[in-house]
Amino acid sequence: MLNLNLGQELMQRLDTLGRCTEEGPGLTRRPFTKEHHEALTVIRGWMEKAGLDISLDAAGTLIGRKEGPLGSKTLLMGSHQDSIKNGGQYDGMFGIALPIIVLEQLKDKQLPFGVEVLAFADEEGVRFPTALMGPRVLAGTFDMACLELVDKDGIKLKDTLSDFGGDPSALKDCKRSSEDVLGFLEVHIEQGPVLENAGKAVGVVTAICGIERWSVTLTGQAAHAGTTPMTLRRDAFAGAAEIAIMLESNCKKAENIVGVIGNINVFPNVVNAIPGCAEFSIELRAGVDESRTAVAKDVEKAIREIAHRRDLGCKIVKNYSQKAVPCDNDLMQLLNKAVKTIDDSPMHLMSGATHDASAMSDLCPVAMLFTRCTNGLSHHPDEAITADDCYQSIQAMHAFITNFKGINIS
Amino acid sequence: MLNLNLGQELMQRLDTLGRCTEEGPGLTRRPFTKEHHEALTVIRGWMEKAGLDISLDAAGTLIGRKEGPLGSKTLLMGSHQDSIKNGGQYDGMFGIALPIIVLEQLKDKQLPFGVEVLAFADEEGVRFPTALMGPRVLAGTFDMACLELVDKDGIKLKDTLSDFGGDPSALKDCKRSSEDVLGFLEVHIEQGPVLENAGKAVGVVTAICGIERWSVTLTGQAAHAGTTPMTLRRDAFAGAAEIAIMLESNCKKAENIVGVIGNINVFPNVVNAIPGCAEFSIELRAGVDESRTAVAKDVEKAIREIAHRRDLGCKIVKNYSQKAVPCDNDLMQLLNKAVKTIDDSPMHLMSGATHDASAMSDLCPVAMLFTRCTNGLSHHPDEAITADDCYQSIQAMHAFITNFKGINIS
Repeated sequence: MLNLNLGQELMQRLDTLGRCTEEGPGLTRRPFTKEHHEALTVIRGWMEKAGLDISLDAAGTLIGRKEGPLGSKTLLMGSHQDSIKNGGQYDGMFGIALPIIVLEQLKDKQLPFGVEVLAFADEEGVRFPTALMGPRVLAGTFDMACLELVDKDGIKLKDTLSDFGGDPSALKDCKRSSEDVLGFLEVHIEQGPVLENAGKAVGVVTAICGIERWSVTLTGQAAHAGTTPMTLRRDAFAGAAEIAIMLESNCKKAENIVGVIGNINVFPNVVNAIPGCAEFSIELRAGVDESRTAVAKDVEKAIREIAHRRDLGCKIVKNYSQKAVPCDNDLMQLLNKAVKTIDDSPMHLMSGATHDASAMSDLCPVAMLFTRCTNGLSHHPDEAITADDCYQSIQAMHAFITNFKGINIS
Repeated sequence: MLNLNLGQELMQRLDTLGRCTEEGPGLTRRPFTKEHHEALTVIRGWMEKAGLDISLDAAGTLIGRKEGPLGSKTLLMGSHQDSIKNGGQYDGMFGIALPIIVLEQLKDKQLPFGVEVLAFADEEGVRFPTALMGPRVLAGTFDMACLELVDKDGIKLKDTLSDFGGDPSALKDCKRSSEDVLGFLEVHIEQGPVLENAGKAVGVVTAICGIERWSVTLTGQAAHAGTTPMTLRRDAFAGAAEIAIMLESNCKKAENIVGVIGNINVFPNVVNAIPGCAEFSIELRAGVDESRTAVAKDVEKAIREIAHRRDLGCKIVKNYSQKAVPCDNDLMQLLNKAVKTIDDSPMHLMSGATHDASAMSDLCPVAMLFTRCTNGLSHHPDEAITADDCYQSIQAMHAFITNFKGINIS
């Protein structure tokens, strides 16, 4: 039986870590800054308490290692230490603090495998126009050209990394061998309302969504809103509105897919003119690429039909896509079993956001455990979790690690 | 039989008048400027040729009068000489040039009533934040406080009016008596596509639309577009889209009413966030106020139902309304008869835009004749009409005036 105060202890640790921030509402911690340095000092303290061997790799990832038997492989865990501007103190940091507190409970226990907790420097990508540097370096997918990128103050990534104690010239040597790694397990707050809505403390992630984004332009005829009868209009916004309702309906009918028009601008955008042009984005996300592709095809066809029926010009530019990352089936089953120690019917859900695990999937099997957050809120100063959910998450992860055999799982 | 070249002659006169403009595309002529002065010199020349008595009233309205028998009443005709920035050369000016050319044909004929052609200074209201000064002064509805308004160069309306030859202190004396006036008849390009679509050169206007404008704010919950399932969203833009389709459908079902969402802004308006707020305008116009009120009631009810079903906050502010001006039935019948000389089945249509006739309706019965314009385009450098439509319009107005008895008509 774990100490009942561990949930409260985890909350206090995250409060302490949350004080390593720039001024302003919520938490603001950019990579390779004074605040990053302060944060690593705090995390280093936890790692020492847990008896881990501590090192900083060339990419600025702080690593706490619990050694396994000679020749055993390593289970990687962890998440990112950085935040967006005026974010919350649980996004990323929860996935560093939690495995450390679990390993502290297992300090005197020899596991049949090695474990490393990784505190990545930069997942959010708010300082430099790149992200996920730490996991990409481990997977060998980091683009070395990014070292020349500059932040808003004109400082190069490679220079700030050197000053921080990293080593741009040694990044290549950080690449891990898939042979040595059992998998990567990331614990994270959900950043959405699904668990809260279902009344669940934690959930097993099935996949990290694939994403595609389109830019759609509808062109009709701007005209006087008084002198043009309803039947003679080519109203670009009315077309966009019909598309928005169609998109919503198609995504609701399909399962485990989300779609949104988040950005829209109409022209001339005045009260007494029929909109002659509407430019808007469409974003689709799904845990299974085939589902997304199928809905995308239907949506595109419907857009063209709507535009044709309304005599509107229609341009669709597909300007971004990112494949889904399915979580490893064996790891998911083990996580499911671990969650059963606190919940008879573990919930499974997809991740709509991208995580360090996305980049780690190029190296090894990945899995994620989500913990409920209040009002589904994240990337916001009011981001919150509860001590009880912390305790349940610790129990689940403790169960996972103590039951894990440390043999190849897929 | 009228001279077949009159249509071409009218086109040439409007070309000449169109050269009185500021630099730039199309026509730009603000009231009480050098260009306005040049334009009145041109119009004065036409009036002289038609044998009219010419005067400039205190509000800067150029008046060309054909005297009637002693004790007879006066039929007023005319429109405005000014334009928007980069507008066309037919809006307003057509309604000045046409009656003058008709009266020129009747130069040697005594009519049983007086006729005045009025070239109003300012209908568009682009120089000062007021409009329709000329007709309002005649009707006695002009707000004298407007004399203190300043243009973008800091010049007061009262000062520029004085410099132009008007007389701010004598505006009150310009008020006409309803007893002396038979009615006001305005010829105008349609500024919409109805006549062109129906294959008609001219149409009899039934009413000048009433207008109401609302500002609607829907408030949902901005959220991560990936982590929030379709069923847990409070998407303010999706609500606005449903309202746009409902508005379009309700206006199409009703007759002679138009409605539009011309202006919309969503927040935060980014590709990967569910819109938490949508602010948009609704404008409704109808020739009959009761029709507009009935549709407005249904639309408002439907907006509140949509907002309630989607769990969106909803604020509706009704920020503008203007009553419809029905055209005088007797004048319409006479116009209809006159149009029959060129078209077996005269078309009747409402005016979606406001005109000088709107303000003149406070003084006397009003009527309007619309002439087809190309592609329904107006307020644009490409505004166009044809010489043949000019000729047909001249024929119709010639028939109207020669058949008009000059007795009280309503």
